[in-house]
Amino acid sequence: MATTIDRWNKGKVSPTMSLARVHNFSISLDGFGTGEGMSRDAPFGHAGERLHQWMFTTRFWHEMTGRSGGTAGLDDAFARQFEPGIGAEIMGAGKFGYPGWHEDPDWKGWWGPNPPFHTPTFVLTHHPRPSIEMEGGTTFHFLDTSPAEALDTAREAADGQDVRIGGGPTVVRDFFAAGLIDRLHVVVAPILLGRGVRLWDGLEGPEKDYEVEATSSPSGVTHVTFTRAGL
Amino acid sequence: MATTIDRWNKGKVSPTMSLARVHNFSISLDGFGTGEGMSRDAPFGHAGERLHQWMFTTRFWHEMTGRSGGTAGLDDAFARQFEPGIGAEIMGAGKFGYPGWHEDPDWKGWWGPNPPFHTPTFVLTHHPRPSIEMEGGTTFHFLDTSPAEALDTAREAADGQDVRIGGGPTVVRDFFAAGLIDRLHVVVAPILLGRGVRLWDGLEGPEKDYEVEATSSPSGVTHVTFTRAGL
Repeated sequence: MATTIDRWNKGKVSPTMSLARVHNFSISLDGFGTGEGMSRDAPFGHAGERLHQWMFTTRFWHEMTGRSGGTAGLDDAFARQFEPGIGAEIMGAGKFGYPGWHEDPDWKGWWGPNPPFHTPTFVLTHHPRPSIEMEGGTTFHFLDTSPAEALDTAREAADGQDVRIGGGPTVVRDFFAAGLIDRLHVVVAPILLGRGVRLWDGLEGPEKDYEVEATSSPSGVTHVTFTRAGL
Repeated sequence: MATTIDRWNKGKVSPTMSLARVHNFSISLDGFGTGEGMSRDAPFGHAGERLHQWMFTTRFWHEMTGRSGGTAGLDDAFARQFEPGIGAEIMGAGKFGYPGWHEDPDWKGWWGPNPPFHTPTFVLTHHPRPSIEMEGGTTFHFLDTSPAEALDTAREAADGQDVRIGGGPTVVRDFFAAGLIDRLHVVVAPILLGRGVRLWDGLEGPEKDYEVEATSSPSGVTHVTFTRAGL
């Protein structure tokens, strides 16, 4: 069996390889990444905050939102992989704003003046607009292009670091279906939403190219990771 | 907080209560309980045996199939809850036979002369036929009736014991949607089937009436249990 050093030497693990990673992507037990009826007042539709409750209790989230405290166990260990090593993010139009945001010239995302990305952030949209520089290192760029081309662009901007594929479900699914994702971290919440946007729709058998691991947390969620074989 | 003895005394836990239970019901990560293209040669369609691989390695399964050996860990502990306390089973036409079995007067199920049920077993079908007595205590009865009425009939036959709702996915879903299931044990296999029959379709929010627990196994599957609140 090859050691890590062997594999490193063979170039299978490279410190300069830029991966495409998904982190903290929450779905319901029936596979919905967002609920039905998304609007400016309900970013996740009828799902509300139920898909992400597991994260709000972590120390990672408390730090992100300028508070002390929070849990430091399994959920936190997964959650805080969100940031290290990331040099750019790609997100869909449905994550950047409410349905119809492209008609609002002042819309700058949900996250206030200092968004939690702190890198170049590429928004896939059929309605591109000029880039928006925010505080804290986040600059929103708008692209009307394919997943593969967007990834090339984001990789260049990431300057050798990894690219986070930030969601929503349609974007993660499109990139996964195109074989572009190297690490996928999905969090299954123990609820049945019944309706919304499914993450897995139309995906058949991608696990043959990945190592898949499931880890249940005392909080009730299950962390499922897909890691490209050989990485 | 009420002790178990308190609850027992209040009648919330009763040794004579007959529960409706689902055990070892396997689904893919994208929620399919069976694949597409079911036939006499492919009882689970394109899913093949992949959904149930976790069970075949258990000591429980080895015992059921007259062999020694098998694993004795988490998967086995869950799997062997299948039989104790069960006095009858209800299954759907799609579990009893291949599409079109009702046109075959000699069809007696997939399981040979001594099926693994060992109790009265009620098959829900729009094509009822006379009961079939098998070896080992299994008698197949055929009912064209609603889930609630079938459960009443099976409970009577179970003589105070529990009733297993045996599947397939449509039957489990119908009974769950009707609020008839007391304990639901689902096993999520780390594969994406992409197509087939979904277990959860149309179910929204049943978790509010249940305690839900998820437990990942070293084998890669995750056991999810719904237990009716107060039981």
